[in-house]
Amino acid sequence: MDSRQRLIETTLRLLRSQGLRATGINEIIRQSGAPRGSIYHHFPGGKEQLVIEALRAAGALIGAKIGAAMAGQASAAAALRAFARVHAEEMMQSDYLLGCPVGNAAADASASSPAVRQACAEIFSAWEQLIAEGFQRAGLDRLPAAALAEFVVASVEGALILCRVRRSMQPLERVGQQLEWLLSSVTPG
Amino acid sequence: MDSRQRLIETTLRLLRSQGLRATGINEIIRQSGAPRGSIYHHFPGGKEQLVIEALRAAGALIGAKIGAAMAGQASAAAALRAFARVHAEEMMQSDYLLGCPVGNAAADASASSPAVRQACAEIFSAWEQLIAEGFQRAGLDRLPAAALAEFVVASVEGALILCRVRRSMQPLERVGQQLEWLLSSVTPG
Repeated sequence: MDSRQRLIETTLRLLRSQGLRATGINEIIRQSGAPRGSIYHHFPGGKEQLVIEALRAAGALIGAKIGAAMAGQASAAAALRAFARVHAEEMMQSDYLLGCPVGNAAADASASSPAVRQACAEIFSAWEQLIAEGFQRAGLDRLPAAALAEFVVASVEGALILCRVRRSMQPLERVGQQLEWLLSSVTPG
Repeated sequence: MDSRQRLIETTLRLLRSQGLRATGINEIIRQSGAPRGSIYHHFPGGKEQLVIEALRAAGALIGAKIGAAMAGQASAAAALRAFARVHAEEMMQSDYLLGCPVGNAAADASASSPAVRQACAEIFSAWEQLIAEGFQRAGLDRLPAAALAEFVVASVEGALILCRVRRSMQPLERVGQQLEWLLSSVTPG
């Protein structure tokens, strides 16, 4: 792995475990093992640029998983389960240490970085768009699909917080069931 | 305001804006204006004890508002709107700087303090219990009321994250509408 990629992966891991403001540039350099000079070579904008690029990379990866889940599933409800599973697997593997990188960074970006806050907003919107498109393919009109997609992102992000503090995946499973039930009651056919 | 109360209020404000791990004991002391010695006088367990007591105080205050909203409203849906409003008002007043103290602390407690993580879990459960009791009074059976209450807490916590990054209360309003719709479809009568 090159030093750019090492910096991005270390940044993501720290964002997921401790949030934006607690993640300092020195800790990123130390834990990544990348040469100190490489951070300003790859990311002239320093921590803020590195964080934004790391979040966008994670956002795109999760977005691709959402897209694949929504496309390959027989029903919108099954796609929803697949979306929840994207987050669930890594959280379990990390013994509940790692939350959603975007949700975690968003929690303190308002107070520390307008640019990171804006990047988080764009990533959430991109996920919602992908989920809404899946719901539209399942027969929902555009506006209800968009509203339901925002509801999915909000409730999954909140459920991930409950999972972490309870050290259990059950909140996400139960929230997924509620969403599926809701979805089945509004989807045609 | 005595120094104990000043320490608690400063801690809460810092937790809400920047999270648990970024909030250091020195910053709490400096911003509170309390004498350095007073923190160990009032909170012999240091930052962890102070954070837990601050979260419990906030949890009880929000719980009291939830209880009042659920009790004084004509319908469970109206009570739900009142619950969302508890969080919304302070977030708007703070120009989206201040999120839910418990949700924010929960986001990085798993990685930094098992005791704070446990306190967050207990506060979320207490809120769910209050909301579930309201739903039961509105005619729901115990198990669906509990599942729906967890869903409410998860989706409101997630919606607050979306509100902060979008600098808009619309995500919470729309999530509230979805929850009301869901609630009206499962509540008898």
